[in-house]
Amino acid sequence: MRDFLPQDKLKRERLIATVVESYIARGFQQIETPVLEDLGRLTSGQGGDNEKLVFKVQKRGEEFTQALEQGEELADLGLRFDLTVPLTRFYASNHSKLPRVFKAIQTGPVFRAERPQKGRYRQFIQCDIDIIGDDSILAELELLSASLAALEAIGVTDATIRVNHRELLRSNIEALGISASDSQAAMIIIDKLDKIGIEGVAKELGEKFGEAIQNSAQAWLTSIDVKNIPAVLQPIWDGLGVKAKSLRFDPTLVRGMGYYTGTIFEIEHPGSGSSIGGGGRYDGMVGKWLGTDAPAVGISLGVERIVDLIPDSKATSESVVLILEENAQAVAMQLQQQLIASGMQVRLEQRPKNLKALLEQLGENGYAKFAIVSATTSDAAELDFKQIG
Amino acid sequence: MRDFLPQDKLKRERLIATVVESYIARGFQQIETPVLEDLGRLTSGQGGDNEKLVFKVQKRGEEFTQALEQGEELADLGLRFDLTVPLTRFYASNHSKLPRVFKAIQTGPVFRAERPQKGRYRQFIQCDIDIIGDDSILAELELLSASLAALEAIGVTDATIRVNHRELLRSNIEALGISASDSQAAMIIIDKLDKIGIEGVAKELGEKFGEAIQNSAQAWLTSIDVKNIPAVLQPIWDGLGVKAKSLRFDPTLVRGMGYYTGTIFEIEHPGSGSSIGGGGRYDGMVGKWLGTDAPAVGISLGVERIVDLIPDSKATSESVVLILEENAQAVAMQLQQQLIASGMQVRLEQRPKNLKALLEQLGENGYAKFAIVSATTSDAAELDFKQIG
Repeated sequence: MRDFLPQDKLKRERLIATVVESYIARGFQQIETPVLEDLGRLTSGQGGDNEKLVFKVQKRGEEFTQALEQGEELADLGLRFDLTVPLTRFYASNHSKLPRVFKAIQTGPVFRAERPQKGRYRQFIQCDIDIIGDDSILAELELLSASLAALEAIGVTDATIRVNHRELLRSNIEALGISASDSQAAMIIIDKLDKIGIEGVAKELGEKFGEAIQNSAQAWLTSIDVKNIPAVLQPIWDGLGVKAKSLRFDPTLVRGMGYYTGTIFEIEHPGSGSSIGGGGRYDGMVGKWLGTDAPAVGISLGVERIVDLIPDSKATSESVVLILEENAQAVAMQLQQQLIASGMQVRLEQRPKNLKALLEQLGENGYAKFAIVSATTSDAAELDFKQIG
Repeated sequence: MRDFLPQDKLKRERLIATVVESYIARGFQQIETPVLEDLGRLTSGQGGDNEKLVFKVQKRGEEFTQALEQGEELADLGLRFDLTVPLTRFYASNHSKLPRVFKAIQTGPVFRAERPQKGRYRQFIQCDIDIIGDDSILAELELLSASLAALEAIGVTDATIRVNHRELLRSNIEALGISASDSQAAMIIIDKLDKIGIEGVAKELGEKFGEAIQNSAQAWLTSIDVKNIPAVLQPIWDGLGVKAKSLRFDPTLVRGMGYYTGTIFEIEHPGSGSSIGGGGRYDGMVGKWLGTDAPAVGISLGVERIVDLIPDSKATSESVVLILEENAQAVAMQLQQQLIASGMQVRLEQRPKNLKALLEQLGENGYAKFAIVSATTSDAAELDFKQIG
């Protein structure tokens, strides 16, 4: 878990605000769910491996004492590991107050009790959009178009979205000679393609399901034609029009989560070693809490990775420093108000004994202009602004 | 803990963004600390009663098993109960990379394991500014002026800030005949003034410290002159100038937290039954982690209470709905882009069998205009926008 210093925080906040603004322009609406959810819900089998990484929150007071005495579960709450499980719970709780087709924006911290390592954090921000209640391809189109527009808005223009469909993947796996019940296990192996290559995947599939499978897998993986977009995905290419050049069909794309039922996406960027976002259709999950099924599809941007792709933030308005001589507080308060009203950012500093050291430090912190304020200054027009350094 | 539906979330986000923007204009800088902190730090005696309300996070893996077997503490992390303890820890960790006088903005969720009751939440947002490294009254002036400006920016114009000083309060308590070592206990009783009145406070002080104290307390509390601003606070009134009319000296103001060492503030508003913010100087706290003392003063706005004082948010840009006939997706994607570029918010909907029901529902959700898009529409100029309802 990390502290964010002012410069980093500014960059992150601007990035998130721009993404959210871009989503709002497309009719998506922000919602918020609590950081804590019932532990039972977080470990109900929807979250795959992430369920093992839940930070558990202890019961309180007598409930804790009792649970400890009776050897029962000591925790009743957990920190959410993603924003999708909370969203589906939110939709089940609140659907009567929401539009029939609900288009949600969520940004907020999620938590995973991973061993600290480069690029993995125990607290990180997710930035998700989801559409619940639309089973048509329009939902996919809106998510992909909105994601590309959001990335463009923050200056990330050369992202590619890999697209696949879980049913296609399943039928490809069956065509290799692997039974439907082994499909999930085969996907876990195929998901390693980036790391172990075609030979490696074919070998592992062979070891698990027999030598014949190794050959059929090898043949399939070497013959893949990403230009041959299947009919079920063609409307996405057609619908995105000129932006479709940012799509790439990838019949081997798996996406880890068990809950996906249809289209799946993963966003890549040449400047990032790993994916900068992803998502897919999860039509069965809302029904788990709601009782009746509701179609749903979502996409998530990885803020931690995207933030590294864009240049540092610059100040948006002119920043100046007023350095106060003794007894100049009241005057400085008025001047500050006056300068802010004219669109400036105004930092106040007491005049220290070592003015030079202060100016150096302010220069290092990005300030370029200062003026001295004395108790007799009566108007901002009297200020004599000088360059720092 | 609560879900926030789109309308509420929008209002909260706008409020927070406006407050932060107003602080940034005054040279404050946003930072962020993790939601989780070491449990030991959260329960080290700095947080008063809030320390009893920490949500504890269980150790993981073998560490947990071992702790359970050996009857040791089962938790190692906790959810922060305020933003002040994390800020002082942040400053101690990062002070070498920060300006000599550090002016921080923090907004984020804090957590308290309270029994759910009206107006108290287990997760809520705090919005704090703090100045570390300035022991002069300029720091107080900046906080008070920035808070009043932020409230004004969100349309809350008639707030009053009650001001007192812990040392004044202590000397007043000693003047009643209560020994310095009983000062803290006396403060807890004086803090009930709003609830039990002068008679009640005098009586409780008498019961605790002797009958003579009841009389001296009664005399003190009935003779209080809020116009008689003490010398130590006068520079605040002088420095704020015309805005000083929003200040009120209150020699009975206590503020609960044990860590305050100097000025204390509480923000009131006629529309709110309880305070909408508060803070004070806590010069001893940073030193606890840093080793050497650093003067510090902060003020916090209560977002949950302020949000009730302002009217609901209206859409900032024109929102329209495009309703798509069959096969109009690709066309709609282009039209949406075109309309967004002209400054609109554009929601897409498939044309359902029951168009009337959809339009009614859109109207209830605040949309006022729609147009039908067919596969042959080729430009936004062709769209025939109609009023909803």
